[in-house]
Amino acid sequence: MNELIKKLRKFASDRDWEQFHSPKNLSMALAVEAAEILELFQWLTEEQSRNIDQDTLNKVKQEIGDVQIYLARLADQLGFSPLEAAKEKLKENADKYPPEKAKGRAKKYTELDK
Amino acid sequence: MNELIKKLRKFASDRDWEQFHSPKNLSMALAVEAAEILELFQWLTEEQSRNIDQDTLNKVKQEIGDVQIYLARLADQLGFSPLEAAKEKLKENADKYPPEKAKGRAKKYTELDK
Amino acid sequence: MNELIKKLRKFASDRDWEQFHSPKNLSMALAVEAAEILELFQWLTEEQSRNIDQDTLNKVKQEIGDVQIYLARLADQLGFSPLEAAKEKLKENADKYPPEKAKGRAKKYTELDK
Amino acid sequence: MNELIKKLRKFASDRDWEQFHSPKNLSMALAVEAAEILELFQWLTEEQSRNIDQDTLNKVKQEIGDVQIYLARLADQLGFSPLEAAKEKLKENADKYPPEKAKGRAKKYTELDK
Repeated sequence: MNELIKKLRKFASDRDWEQFHSPKNLSMALAVEAAEILELFQWLTEEQSRNIDQDTLNKVKQEIGDVQIYLARLADQLGFSPLEAAKEKLKENADKYPPEKAKGRAKKYTELDK
Repeated sequence: MNELIKKLRKFASDRDWEQFHSPKNLSMALAVEAAEILELFQWLTEEQSRNIDQDTLNKVKQEIGDVQIYLARLADQLGFSPLEAAKEKLKENADKYPPEKAKGRAKKYTELDK
Repeated sequence: MNELIKKLRKFASDRDWEQFHSPKNLSMALAVEAAEILELFQWLTEEQSRNIDQDTLNKVKQEIGDVQIYLARLADQLGFSPLEAAKEKLKENADKYPPEKAKGRAKKYTELDK
Repeated sequence: MNELIKKLRKFASDRDWEQFHSPKNLSMALAVEAAEILELFQWLTEEQSRNIDQDTLNKVKQEIGDVQIYLARLADQLGFSPLEAAKEKLKENADKYPPEKAKGRAKKYTELDK
C-alpha cells in the first residue's frame, strides 16, 4: 500500500493534478468508480454474479483497481493509509457484531437486539 | 492487505455471512459506503474539504475503512487482491495519460487530443 | 412537477441555501440519496425486494422523495424539468432498444448485435 | 408523471424486461445513473458547474433523464409516484429545517441546535 501511495503522489505531481485532487473531488471520483462496478452487476442475479465470465471479471478487476487508486489517494491527502483505517474499523465492527448475535443475520447492529 | 483479507474471511465465516456476500451485494455495500464519504463533503467547498476539523476527519477515516473493507472482500470473492488490481490499472493509466499531454488538464484520455 | 420545482425554489430561498446549491453540490446530494435507497436493498434478495414490509416501504418512499427533490432542483438550476428530460431520453431509448432485439435481454444497446 | 409511468410500463412489457426490474436491481440502476451525473461534475469547480457549456449541458440532461426514468419505474414497482413521495418529504423537511434556524447553514437538522 505504501508503495502504491508513493506512486500515486508522483503520478499526480508529474501531471500537475494536485490542484484537482481536493478531498471533495476525490470523494466524487471514488463514488463514480464504485458505481462502475455496480453497473457490471446491476442486471445479474446474485448467482450469476458469483459465476461471471472472464471478460466481465477483467472489467470488474479494472474498476476495483480504480476504486483502490482513488481510495488510497483520498486517504493520503488526509494523512493516513486506507489499510490502517480498515483495520481500526474492523475492530469496531467486531464489537458491534458479536458472532452469537449476528449469526446468519444481515441486520444493522442497531437492530440486532430486536 | 493479505492480513486484512484473511481477517475478513474469518469475520464473515464466524457470522455465517458468506450467504450475503455475493459480488452483487458487495458491490452495493461498496457504493453505499463510498456515498457516505460523499455525504461528508457534499456541502463543503473544495477549500474547506482540504481543511476539515478533527471530528470530520475521524468520520471520513471510518468511512474510508468501510470502503476498504468491502473492496478487499469483493476482490477476494473474485480471486484477487485490490492492491494488485490497482497496480495494474496504474500502469494502464500511465500509458493513457502521458505527462506532457495530461499536464494540468482534468480531461478523459479520449479527449486529450482535442 | 412545476409545482414541486416552485416550492423547492422558495424552500431554498427562504433558507438562503442557493449558495450551496451549485450543480456540483446537488449532483453529490443526489448520489448520496440514491445510495440511501441502495442501502435498504443491499442485503435483500431480489425476491425479498419485491415483497418488502410496510416499514421498509415507508423508508424507501422517503428516500425516493429525497432523490426526486434533488433531481428536480438540479434540473431547475440548469434550466429544464426532469420530466421533459425523461421523455426525451425515453424516445432515444426506444430507438436504441427495438423490442425485437432487446426482448428478454438485459444487455447494453452496443452489445445487442452480438 | 403519470404519463411517463405508463410509458415505462409499456416499454418494459414490450421488451419482456419486468423480470429484471426488481426493486433491488432498479435501485442499482438508479445509483449508476446518478453517478454518471457526478462524473460530469467531478473535476469542475462549483463555479464552473454553474456555467457549463452546451455540450456538457446536453450530457447532464440525458443523465437526469435516465435518473428520472429509473426513479419513476422504481416508485411505480412499489405502488406510488415519486412526485407524491417528494411532496410528502418536502413537508417533513419544512418542519426539520425552520428558516430561522437553517438560514445560510448547510447542517443536518440534528446539528442545527449546536
